[in-house]
Amino acid sequence: PYPNFTPEEAGRVAAATTSAREYLAESYDPWEAEREGWVGDRVIRELGERGLTGLFIDEQYGGLGLSQTGYCRVMEEFGRVDAALSVVMGVHQSIGSKPLFLYGTDDQKARWLPDLAAGRKLAAFVLTEPNVGSDAFHLETWAERQSDGSWLLNGEKRWIGNGDRDVLTVFAQSDLGHVALIVEKGMDGLSTGPRFETLGLKANHLQRVHFKNVRVPAENLLGEPGDGFRIAMNTLNNGRMSMGTAISGGMKQFLQLSIEHTTTRQQFGRPLIDFELVEDKLAWMNTQIYGLESTSYLTTGLVDRGVADFALESAMTKVRASDTGWYALNRAVQVHGGEAYMADHPLSKALRDFRIFPIFEGSNDVMRAYVALNGLKALSEDL
Amino acid sequence: PYPNFTPEEAGRVAAATTSAREYLAESYDPWEAEREGWVGDRVIRELGERGLTGLFIDEQYGGLGLSQTGYCRVMEEFGRVDAALSVVMGVHQSIGSKPLFLYGTDDQKARWLPDLAAGRKLAAFVLTEPNVGSDAFHLETWAERQSDGSWLLNGEKRWIGNGDRDVLTVFAQSDLGHVALIVEKGMDGLSTGPRFETLGLKANHLQRVHFKNVRVPAENLLGEPGDGFRIAMNTLNNGRMSMGTAISGGMKQFLQLSIEHTTTRQQFGRPLIDFELVEDKLAWMNTQIYGLESTSYLTTGLVDRGVADFALESAMTKVRASDTGWYALNRAVQVHGGEAYMADHPLSKALRDFRIFPIFEGSNDVMRAYVALNGLKALSEDL
Amino acid sequence: PYPNFTPEEAGRVAAATTSAREYLAESYDPWEAEREGWVGDRVIRELGERGLTGLFIDEQYGGLGLSQTGYCRVMEEFGRVDAALSVVMGVHQSIGSKPLFLYGTDDQKARWLPDLAAGRKLAAFVLTEPNVGSDAFHLETWAERQSDGSWLLNGEKRWIGNGDRDVLTVFAQSDLGHVALIVEKGMDGLSTGPRFETLGLKANHLQRVHFKNVRVPAENLLGEPGDGFRIAMNTLNNGRMSMGTAISGGMKQFLQLSIEHTTTRQQFGRPLIDFELVEDKLAWMNTQIYGLESTSYLTTGLVDRGVADFALESAMTKVRASDTGWYALNRAVQVHGGEAYMADHPLSKALRDFRIFPIFEGSNDVMRAYVALNGLKALSEDL
Amino acid sequence: PYPNFTPEEAGRVAAATTSAREYLAESYDPWEAEREGWVGDRVIRELGERGLTGLFIDEQYGGLGLSQTGYCRVMEEFGRVDAALSVVMGVHQSIGSKPLFLYGTDDQKARWLPDLAAGRKLAAFVLTEPNVGSDAFHLETWAERQSDGSWLLNGEKRWIGNGDRDVLTVFAQSDLGHVALIVEKGMDGLSTGPRFETLGLKANHLQRVHFKNVRVPAENLLGEPGDGFRIAMNTLNNGRMSMGTAISGGMKQFLQLSIEHTTTRQQFGRPLIDFELVEDKLAWMNTQIYGLESTSYLTTGLVDRGVADFALESAMTKVRASDTGWYALNRAVQVHGGEAYMADHPLSKALRDFRIFPIFEGSNDVMRAYVALNGLKALSEDL
Ligand SMILES: Cc1cc2nc3c(=O)[nH]c(=O)nc-3n(C[C@H](O)[C@H](O)[C@H](O)COP(=O)(O)OP(=O)(O)OC[C@H]3O[C@@H](n4cnc5c(N)ncnc54)[C@H](O)[C@@H]3O)c2cc1C
Ligand SMILES: Cc1cc2nc3c(=O)[nH]c(=O)nc-3n(C[C@H](O)[C@H](O)[C@H](O)COP(=O)(O)OP(=O)(O)OC[C@H]3O[C@@H](n4cnc5c(N)ncnc54)[C@H](O)[C@@H]3O)c2cc1C
Ligand SMILES: Cc1cc2nc3c(=O)[nH]c(=O)nc-3n(C[C@H](O)[C@H](O)[C@H](O)COP(=O)(O)OP(=O)(O)OC[C@H]3O[C@@H](n4cnc5c(N)ncnc54)[C@H](O)[C@@H]3O)c2cc1C
Ligand SMILES: Cc1cc2nc3c(=O)[nH]c(=O)nc-3n(C[C@H](O)[C@H](O)[C@H](O)COP(=O)(O)OP(=O)(O)OC[C@H]3O[C@@H](n4cnc5c(N)ncnc54)[C@H](O)[C@@H]3O)c2cc1C
Repeated sequence: PYPNFTPEEAGRVAAATTSAREYLAESYDPWEAEREGWVGDRVIRELGERGLTGLFIDEQYGGLGLSQTGYCRVMEEFGRVDAALSVVMGVHQSIGSKPLFLYGTDDQKARWLPDLAAGRKLAAFVLTEPNVGSDAFHLETWAERQSDGSWLLNGEKRWIGNGDRDVLTVFAQSDLGHVALIVEKGMDGLSTGPRFETLGLKANHLQRVHFKNVRVPAENLLGEPGDGFRIAMNTLNNGRMSMGTAISGGMKQFLQLSIEHTTTRQQFGRPLIDFELVEDKLAWMNTQIYGLESTSYLTTGLVDRGVADFALESAMTKVRASDTGWYALNRAVQVHGGEAYMADHPLSKALRDFRIFPIFEGSNDVMRAYVALNGLKALSEDL
Repeated sequence: PYPNFTPEEAGRVAAATTSAREYLAESYDPWEAEREGWVGDRVIRELGERGLTGLFIDEQYGGLGLSQTGYCRVMEEFGRVDAALSVVMGVHQSIGSKPLFLYGTDDQKARWLPDLAAGRKLAAFVLTEPNVGSDAFHLETWAERQSDGSWLLNGEKRWIGNGDRDVLTVFAQSDLGHVALIVEKGMDGLSTGPRFETLGLKANHLQRVHFKNVRVPAENLLGEPGDGFRIAMNTLNNGRMSMGTAISGGMKQFLQLSIEHTTTRQQFGRPLIDFELVEDKLAWMNTQIYGLESTSYLTTGLVDRGVADFALESAMTKVRASDTGWYALNRAVQVHGGEAYMADHPLSKALRDFRIFPIFEGSNDVMRAYVALNGLKALSEDL
Repeated sequence: PYPNFTPEEAGRVAAATTSAREYLAESYDPWEAEREGWVGDRVIRELGERGLTGLFIDEQYGGLGLSQTGYCRVMEEFGRVDAALSVVMGVHQSIGSKPLFLYGTDDQKARWLPDLAAGRKLAAFVLTEPNVGSDAFHLETWAERQSDGSWLLNGEKRWIGNGDRDVLTVFAQSDLGHVALIVEKGMDGLSTGPRFETLGLKANHLQRVHFKNVRVPAENLLGEPGDGFRIAMNTLNNGRMSMGTAISGGMKQFLQLSIEHTTTRQQFGRPLIDFELVEDKLAWMNTQIYGLESTSYLTTGLVDRGVADFALESAMTKVRASDTGWYALNRAVQVHGGEAYMADHPLSKALRDFRIFPIFEGSNDVMRAYVALNGLKALSEDL
Repeated sequence: PYPNFTPEEAGRVAAATTSAREYLAESYDPWEAEREGWVGDRVIRELGERGLTGLFIDEQYGGLGLSQTGYCRVMEEFGRVDAALSVVMGVHQSIGSKPLFLYGTDDQKARWLPDLAAGRKLAAFVLTEPNVGSDAFHLETWAERQSDGSWLLNGEKRWIGNGDRDVLTVFAQSDLGHVALIVEKGMDGLSTGPRFETLGLKANHLQRVHFKNVRVPAENLLGEPGDGFRIAMNTLNNGRMSMGTAISGGMKQFLQLSIEHTTTRQQFGRPLIDFELVEDKLAWMNTQIYGLESTSYLTTGLVDRGVADFALESAMTKVRASDTGWYALNRAVQVHGGEAYMADHPLSKALRDFRIFPIFEGSNDVMRAYVALNGLKALSEDL
């Protein structure tokens, strides 16, 4: 089921999709990225050369200028090949570059977006702290407004993808409310590490980030003082859709592998696919992929049509995608039997990678409470 | 989330939807229909006057000529008010009139569709037999081709909605393969009854139908001899989508009732909605409604765009709609506590009505095996 | 899996079980009870003659003196034949007579237990009010202590099984805390009705109960003033186990019916049991029955061994039994296809009856929060 | 809930349990075992010195002579500390030494059991082959009976725990039906490797085993020719119970960790445990642990009482334990948020370890079909 594009965008999306698919098939090895603990600077550069690191960034800044739908369509390709790569791309684009894209002034955009679009620089979204996870409002990182309008930043952030890279949107509290500040690699007082080792997504560079009297110039403030929390939330709302399509990309891989395996592996004198309990699992996966795609692209369509508030739809898409992605994976594993348990099997890697989706960018439990509470008013009116 | 119509159709759909909504609010009482064991001839007539019994039938035959999407949109309204009414409308339109609509010659259409569109006559889909349920291929009802081209029909059908009404598409085996024959009320040798009493859907008139040497004229054959099974299956494929939207209409009612109840009922000094386990249930319902609508209308969109084969998508929509409709209902019941268990509570009626959806028009278990098997080839190519 | 009794009790339990089984097979018709809206006074009398209305009541008061395990074993037989009958028996014994059994003085026991044991009188447990459901602490019914030690009772209760019968344990607030008072039919100011009509359990006589200045003598107070809430809670803790075994009795019936149906009904040229998705459902049911029985009888064993606190185990048994009973029933219905949907099919009746179990005697959602909170301390110590 | 032992066995079980618990707390490090890819020869030796490698082996052969219940109780301790260790112990005892224990002649027992009991030698269960997984009947490994009564063994086995160790019970086909042969390390023609690398259970040494004209003496045959399949199946039936209790040991660890985390970690100004969705997860875990323990020990009790056939109960215990163990783990992970995703967190290790349980020693899907089919006759009689 493909979303409706204008013929013109359809062409650009198809080109980007094909470009991604071909490039990844030839030049990207998820296992090597795992071993290296990083998708690789070469890969980033080459993706950048193809425009794939600036998918939604405006063409004037060197991006491909894709719609939300187009962007999410390409993310599906990343997700299909490697969840870790899709997360790195998501960190850089969906949440890393997005604040600038949504809230940057022309000057700010001109300054940072071209490098980000081209993949010469990588972006990070710097929100979570040791004491701040689901409750992203009560940040402890503090930005003290200086007399010259600059900010003095102190605090510690954890679990930050690309945290040791180039362009960091950092969220902090201040006397004037929450602020979102662009911090650049190399600033005095900024340090990172040690790196976090995780169960999966090992090619995603996850960092601790420390701010010790980092002086951030006034012109690095995104939006107005007090806008910080809104910027963080809107960025996440916006970013959750591409997680959905990256996951459905992964689910397609699971289904493909499962079809291949169950049509060739024989037991009891028959291919496994002949057993109804196997059929049931494949059918379930297929049904969920179909459902997830319809929901994701309905939601991206809302964004592209300029609907003002899609926070609810976006949250629902995230919750369902991450839950059903996990269940689909477990079914795929089950029909593979012992083979999926081998360390070098893609499903075994996926088991390590996919477990994070119901947790990050908003734990599903918290998202559900959010959907109920924030959705309530709208619901009773619209239903 | 509303589907995309051309502005012209959007207007007609909106008119039909509003007409249905207003009429039902004023003039239809689900409880009275239950007590009567029939939605009521008056209701049928008045729905007919509004065009609501011929939603997709071409305007030249007096129908509203709605697309599949438009048709399903209006079915949502029926489902929202009463599952039983949505089934009666579904039997008459989705599966009763549909074979004629899809496979009738111009003569056949001209002969029967105007009365069906106007609700002056009701249609039935006559497939199931005592020994024939999920395995609809091995029919025992027999049609013996006579020398004059007419057919002599013998056999027994069970669980036939509108079985005692006017225009019956009857499926039978014959020496020439499966046939689909239009049988009309009043033909010699046709008898019905006794009526089946069911757990729910009590306003749906469910009949046993007997054929004892019923002579069916040659011109009442739909399609060619041998087409019967294909006609039955394609009709069902086509009909399953509106079951999906009727169910999501019902789910909206469940959610609405649940919001109303949990914001007003207090326990432990707080409205029930303040408890996370309640929020979780409402959020789940909302997420599923959103998912189901996207899937349903994506699927109807396929049909309307003329995609040749949507059997898989249609089956997946049916399975998911009927499963999640049931789960949603159970959550709604749970947050209502003892109140939902009172015989006169709408959720208590819904518990009786909704349990059939995972069973009829293709048992979900069989549908899942079908999705796996038939979907397999396409899947491996398309994914 | 049968629990361990002393040989002596084993004999008595077997006798009671057989007596119940035989009596019910011959003399009890669930459908007639449904139509009458009451299990029938004759049935109560005849059960009483067999000792089956006083299963755990001491022999000196005319009961059978069974242990908790023995009692629950017999309740399984009731549950197997008719959920409604098991509820009536549960109301009378598990929660109706239990407060007297647990907290009555010798005088009180001598006064009321003989009639209750013999089924000459029926007991009720009178806790729930229009504004008091899950939060059973904040009762609005008020008992005003009089100078002579008697109580003046005012208030309204709803959804009370046997509410119009003989011996009512009524819970109320007072200046001295919660009280549990024995109210007898015929007292001035006591009135009942109208009866509540429910989705299922139609043979359970469910009443509204009104107290208008009912004067309850001092000697009708159970325990001390202030004990009321504890008496109510301990009674429920005690009663929840027999709901568990009544449900597993029902599940055995579902499984039995499903085996019979799927070994005889053929589709696609094979008995339904040959399909793995059918096998899977039967296996699931069997596994759950086995699990539920082990848990239930482990718990009743705790009680019989004199373990002081089994509130947690009892709550866990209730939650699991009522959830899995419902899931098992849904699987049984599914493998029966359309037949289970006929109004006169036992599974269709069960669908109406069983939906209440996750709601009453403590809504499962509230029970789960309770298990987490109250279980926590014990857990961290014992694990 | 503790099982009933005779006072005498209770003492021995308590001693073994305590010994295991203390030893593991002091001297076993799951992370080191992971890094080494083996629990360690020192650990095996020290466990052996405490009798923990010969738990059920008769005292005359140097074992502790525990009942099935006692054995499973101790396995819980292993499972609580490290799933990999519990698997190594299970391979050695539940399935490795068990065939000799159940089917060995006195001579065979005297020859091998003492070393196995003392942990001087390790046992393996050698059934699975590249083309033989769930369908364990159609083995390709072939044993050719020689004129001197010895057997010439050819074939390849895969995924064999302890496959490179000392005493291997190898299953093969022969002209005389299935045979079970004791193969010893060092025999000519026996070779192993390379080792399989797996997602988890990294301390379990998993081997490919090759037989090239291995000559196995006549006296190494277990039972009679033709008994092989029965020996394999009965061993597995016997072994599945200890997997159940090892898993519930693990679940206790998950719950313990979750209680600790959610009572200390704060978000939104409250400890996580205060959120109902968190409570619900902990309660679910606790309820399942309780249920699983009751079922497991009811089943071991059957074995200890000498009940002849417990295959069904054993299969049901395995399926439920492995399913609910996985669900419990996922809940524990969820309430830990990002922390559980760190590579050095015990739950992150558990995610890698526990996914195998629904697959090995009988894939759960196959077990369910087995329960339905084999359970059927018994069920219809006993219910
Ligand atoms: C691999 C990885 C990559 C990440 N990348 C980034 C990044 O690039 N930038 C960034 O800023 N952050 C990042 N994060 C952080 C991530 O967004 C947080 O982990 C997430 O927001 C959850 O916070 P927490 O882990 O602190 O969980 P907590 O907030 O401690 O919550 C733990 C659990 O408690 C429960 N819970 C909490 N509150 C409630 C409630 N109100 N109701 C019910 N249940 C509740 C939920 O089950 C939840 O899962 C990353 C994390 C990981 C693991
Ligand atoms: C209220 C109601 C209205 C109806 N209206 C109509 C109507 O208007 N016209 C009409 O023609 N029919 C109608 N039907 C019939 C309906 O379509 C059938 O009930 C349905 O097709 C299933 O057939 P069955 O009930 O005979 O179930 P069976 O075919 O006997 O199947 C029973 C169960 O067995 C299992 N099963 C069967 N085959 C398989 C398999 N291959 N793999 C796995 N599991 C399997 C499934 O769990 C299934 O639910 C109606 C039925 C009802 C109850
Ligand atoms: C057929 C029937 C027979 C009965 N018989 C008797 C009887 O004999 N005697 C008697 O005294 N009572 C009886 N009752 C009453 C029964 O015990 C109550 O219905 C039950 O306690 C639940 O109360 P409620 O229905 O008022 O639900 P509410 O308390 O209003 O709760 C409704 C729902 O809200 C949610 N909820 C409530 N609190 C929380 C929370 N803290 N956290 C999360 N979710 C929450 C749950 O989903 C719950 O199901 C009977 C009821 C019925 C229907
Ligand atoms: C870590 C590990 C340790 C092991 N240790 C040992 C050991 O020590 N000794 C030993 O002999 N073996 C061992 N095994 C092998 C293990 O027992 C097998 O993996 C298991 O029996 C399943 O076989 P399979 O993996 O070949 O799956 P397959 O038989 O190929 O089955 C794959 C999947 O197909 C489906 N399926 C298969 N048949 C049916 C059916 N009839 N109906 C429905 N679905 C079906 C199921 O979903 C199943 O999971 C080990 C395996 C692993 C991974």
